Amino acid sequence: MGRITRKESHAQTRERLVQTAHRLFLSDGYNATSLDKVAAEAGFSKGAVYSNFSTKHELGLAVLDVIHQERALSLASTVEGVDSVEGRIDAFAAWAEANIGDVGWTALEVEFATSTRRIPGVNQQLAARRRELTAAVAGLIEQQVTDLGLTLPSPAEDAAVQLLSLGIGLGVQRAFDPDLPVTSLVDLLRSLLERADVPDRG
Amino acid sequence: MGRITRKESHAQTRERLVQTAHRLFLSDGYNATSLDKVAAEAGFSKGAVYSNFSTKHELGLAVLDVIHQERALSLASTVEGVDSVEGRIDAFAAWAEANIGDVGWTALEVEFATSTRRIPGVNQQLAARRRELTAAVAGLIEQQVTDLGLTLPSPAEDAAVQLLSLGIGLGVQRAFDPDLPVTSLVDLLRSLLERADVPDRG
Repeated sequence: MGRITRKESHAQTRERLVQTAHRLFLSDGYNATSLDKVAAEAGFSKGAVYSNFSTKHELGLAVLDVIHQERALSLASTVEGVDSVEGRIDAFAAWAEANIGDVGWTALEVEFATSTRRIPGVNQQLAARRRELTAAVAGLIEQQVTDLGLTLPSPAEDAAVQLLSLGIGLGVQRAFDPDLPVTSLVDLLRSLLERADVPDRG
Repeated sequence: MGRITRKESHAQTRERLVQTAHRLFLSDGYNATSLDKVAAEAGFSKGAVYSNFSTKHELGLAVLDVIHQERALSLASTVEGVDSVEGRIDAFAAWAEANIGDVGWTALEVEFATSTRRIPGVNQQLAARRRELTAAVAGLIEQQVTDLGLTLPSPAEDAAVQLLSLGIGLGVQRAFDPDLPVTSLVDLLRSLLERADVPDRG
């Protein structure tokens, strides 16, 4: 009782390193943050970092995974419990306004993708995450449509690629031009839901 | 005759520097290319660079302007002279497949925006270019619609923001995952043109 195993200790170290890297990557940038600095700020040796992450981009991917999970949860909880189509669209619009183009997040995504693009294997890891994110957005769309008693005219996956890509493109632009509204993304969601009919109950 | 003025010489030096920077930024990256290297490869002194561009990001913006102009011209010439709606959509799809997510171009755009985001004034310059690009895309849409005898149901500017943002978002993802198709962008253009009716000739 009270004693933690070697495995638990390793997991705690890893979590602490990811939290520290998360904070530093967002405030200072990915390239400007060394593994040494992450270790020092988290209160560990550089050896502790390397026993968890063999390269900096592994730590970068772990941080991106945490961010994606956080933002997906915040989006899901925003629309949850809202009954009407218009209510959900309004909830989504408020989430988009607060999240799409968040400077630290957007800069980290693009800085990571750009600075690791010549490291073998990283593109494949980013591509796998892109597919996972798209599937998560498609799942969220399907859930909304089912909740509202609607039927999509085309695969949810297609709508997910469109919404996610438009969101990324808006984010990249809003990071340097916050005056650009998120209306175009909200309009795309609305036109998608307008084309989704109440299913034939025949 | 045959002698060039000081002003012409200055303009030629500038053009040569932009061409050299264009090549180096695309092959090696923006951050990895120093002004010294641009000067040396173009065959000029570092002083020649500074008499034309007081900072590296001014040279970066000049290169981005050249790229945007080239790509806009190539898009316009692709759809020009094609008579049918479907023919223009196919021509656009072929252009998108070849251009959206071009690794060197995409990486330069995001690397420039990310690495200059804390330099005062650069965000405003990027925002001004975003507005110019959007207006250019809106102009191209209006021209297509007029050529085809159609009327848009909503302002061309709104469609331009949607198409440009979706294109940017797809480009960011295709840069690391070229398997992602451009279908979602082509579908958005098609749904836009389908909603554009032949005007009432009453």
